Amino acid sequence: ATKKLLVLPGDGIGPEVMHEVARVVAWMSRARGISFDISEDLVGGASLAVHGVPIREEVIQAARAADAVLFGSVGDPKWASVGFDRRPEVAILKLRQELGLFANLRPAKVFDALVDASTLKPDVVAGLDIMIVRETVGGIYFGEPRGIETLPDGMKRGINTEVYTTAEIERVARVAFDLARQRGNRVCSVEKCNVMESGLLWKEVVTDLHARDYPDVELSHMLADNCAMQLVRNPRQFDVIVTGNLFGDLLSDLASMLTGSLGMLPSATLGTVDATGKRPALYEPIHGSAPDIAGKGLANPLAQILSFSMLLRYSFGMDAEAELIETAVSNVLASGLRTADIMSPGMAQVGTAVMGEAVVRELDKL
Amino acid sequence: ATKKLLVLPGDGIGPEVMHEVARVVAWMSRARGISFDISEDLVGGASLAVHGVPIREEVIQAARAADAVLFGSVGDPKWASVGFDRRPEVAILKLRQELGLFANLRPAKVFDALVDASTLKPDVVAGLDIMIVRETVGGIYFGEPRGIETLPDGMKRGINTEVYTTAEIERVARVAFDLARQRGNRVCSVEKCNVMESGLLWKEVVTDLHARDYPDVELSHMLADNCAMQLVRNPRQFDVIVTGNLFGDLLSDLASMLTGSLGMLPSATLGTVDATGKRPALYEPIHGSAPDIAGKGLANPLAQILSFSMLLRYSFGMDAEAELIETAVSNVLASGLRTADIMSPGMAQVGTAVMGEAVVRELDKL
Ligand SMILES: CC(C)[C@H](C(=O)O)[C@@H](O)C(=O)O
Ligand SMILES: CC(C)[C@H](C(=O)O)[C@@H](O)C(=O)O
Repeated sequence: ATKKLLVLPGDGIGPEVMHEVARVVAWMSRARGISFDISEDLVGGASLAVHGVPIREEVIQAARAADAVLFGSVGDPKWASVGFDRRPEVAILKLRQELGLFANLRPAKVFDALVDASTLKPDVVAGLDIMIVRETVGGIYFGEPRGIETLPDGMKRGINTEVYTTAEIERVARVAFDLARQRGNRVCSVEKCNVMESGLLWKEVVTDLHARDYPDVELSHMLADNCAMQLVRNPRQFDVIVTGNLFGDLLSDLASMLTGSLGMLPSATLGTVDATGKRPALYEPIHGSAPDIAGKGLANPLAQILSFSMLLRYSFGMDAEAELIETAVSNVLASGLRTADIMSPGMAQVGTAVMGEAVVRELDKL
Repeated sequence: ATKKLLVLPGDGIGPEVMHEVARVVAWMSRARGISFDISEDLVGGASLAVHGVPIREEVIQAARAADAVLFGSVGDPKWASVGFDRRPEVAILKLRQELGLFANLRPAKVFDALVDASTLKPDVVAGLDIMIVRETVGGIYFGEPRGIETLPDGMKRGINTEVYTTAEIERVARVAFDLARQRGNRVCSVEKCNVMESGLLWKEVVTDLHARDYPDVELSHMLADNCAMQLVRNPRQFDVIVTGNLFGDLLSDLASMLTGSLGMLPSATLGTVDATGKRPALYEPIHGSAPDIAGKGLANPLAQILSFSMLLRYSFGMDAEAELIETAVSNVLASGLRTADIMSPGMAQVGTAVMGEAVVRELDKL
């Protein structure tokens, strides 16, 4: 059966970078005879503008029914005042939670051609290839009680709750250990067990699971503050990092920025295989909606294009096609084209569309 | 009256770097006729070894009675199994809470002589001078409920609670705004208001306080994940950063590591001025207890020495003496001496004691 793909461009630069993926999809059909049953819908600021909500129930249903979701980005600050329940970010948070997308895989990889784009010295980051596995349906993002209460004296109290259970920790740690076996075979588990009991449990559960099922993988533990430092001091010490929702949010963004090419990095968020053998999955670039450059045709579409290639590989097993896209992206970089975010002296600065077209031109040559 | 100083070296490299401060204290008395009423006690692993607890009640009393506390470091992992209530870190957490030390001031400064010690490119970090103001008696570090509970099915749940009240946010934001006025006049307030209600309240309270009492200071807001990225992308965009306990823990360590000279950075943690005009204050290096190099005479004592100079300045108003120490440290660096952590080609690598002696020799010349 034709694979069902739900495309959710979102707000900010989401739509314009997603537009470049459409070219790659068209090429797949034209050149390789592979086509998808694609539907598209609004989320985030784009949905707020039309429907008054960040995501409609029917979009969540469509995401459930799809074989994979390709997501753009949400977070346009112009909607900051619509209220906490209706902010654009609710779109991605709800999709993660409703589809049970608990494991966010975020590669931080330095592309050889872009080693100079990093603010770190080339000898510190050349060849860097970290995979961060971030838990995404638990922790302080979703724990109850939460909210703002007004005290009798008029003062307010803001409350959030970090909760992790044995089962939640185990399933995401499994993903990390399984991935490590296909890579450098090392996992670093990150928490703040010297201050938080939820971190203490995290460490305990990962340690037990390791002893039980993954003794062949090298496991280390690191405090989150130390991890933030070590990522700057010597990022290549890491292979796979596994951590909770909040620490993962900061550490994966930090790790991505080390590469100097945030606009290049895709991510996958995976759920649990269901009774029919289907595994819910959502693919999105690591970068946000970048409202400052939205609509200007300046954004780098490569992270969104690589998110599509990650989708082909992880959800559809189309490794050959995924590789074609990755090679095309490599070749575009080698040819000297650069969007503003990865520009360096001697290269040719181009906009979103020229970059997308260049990828298709390289695909044509393969 | 002679100023009362409580010295708490702690565990790991704490005692050996504190030993070098003793030389500077002796010099102050010898060369400047300034002396202190100094008492010393055990905390952290050192206290656990002798007393079975990370900090004794009488040490907390002594800290309350002192005019200032000079703290080393705690966190020797060899005590990891003594139980969550008795881990070495409890020493610093209790001191912060019992003395109401709510504002941790953490400068991240690049020393001109050490610009090459950073893993970041010199043109990205040269001249960097950020002040991070971290809240230290609230947030998820202390919020209730907390703990690990066992569920009926044998699974466990780890829980921590992030709580911030209007008053807690306001008082730390005031410290940040006041500091900004003496520096670059810019404050960036950092939270995760797109996910956490406690962050939403944080942003609201800082915004209101700014409008009310500090309209002359430039205020911006940033999400914590973005801040982690921006610190790597372009750290010099920041002047003062104010944030909660947990984000401050990660972001301040990250910012310190950008400088490449963690072993050089002191910090101050301040409380509220009491009825007698005394302001509780604790000074400690930003680096931890570094158990891997403890006892080897390799640690850099300069952060501990600079913590003492920060103490002279902030608690005792001895600006001239503080400056002498800072100049001496500068001159030692200019003379080419380096401990291992800041070593670079062409410099002379020395140990803890030689570095401490060199500071005193430079003081003698001033
Ligand atoms: C948009 C926001 C809610 C989200 C998060 O905090 O998880 C984003 O920062 C991310 O990392 O995917
Ligand atoms: C020792 C530890 C409890 C402490 C903290 O997390 O606050 C340390 O990392 C710090 O930053 O001072």
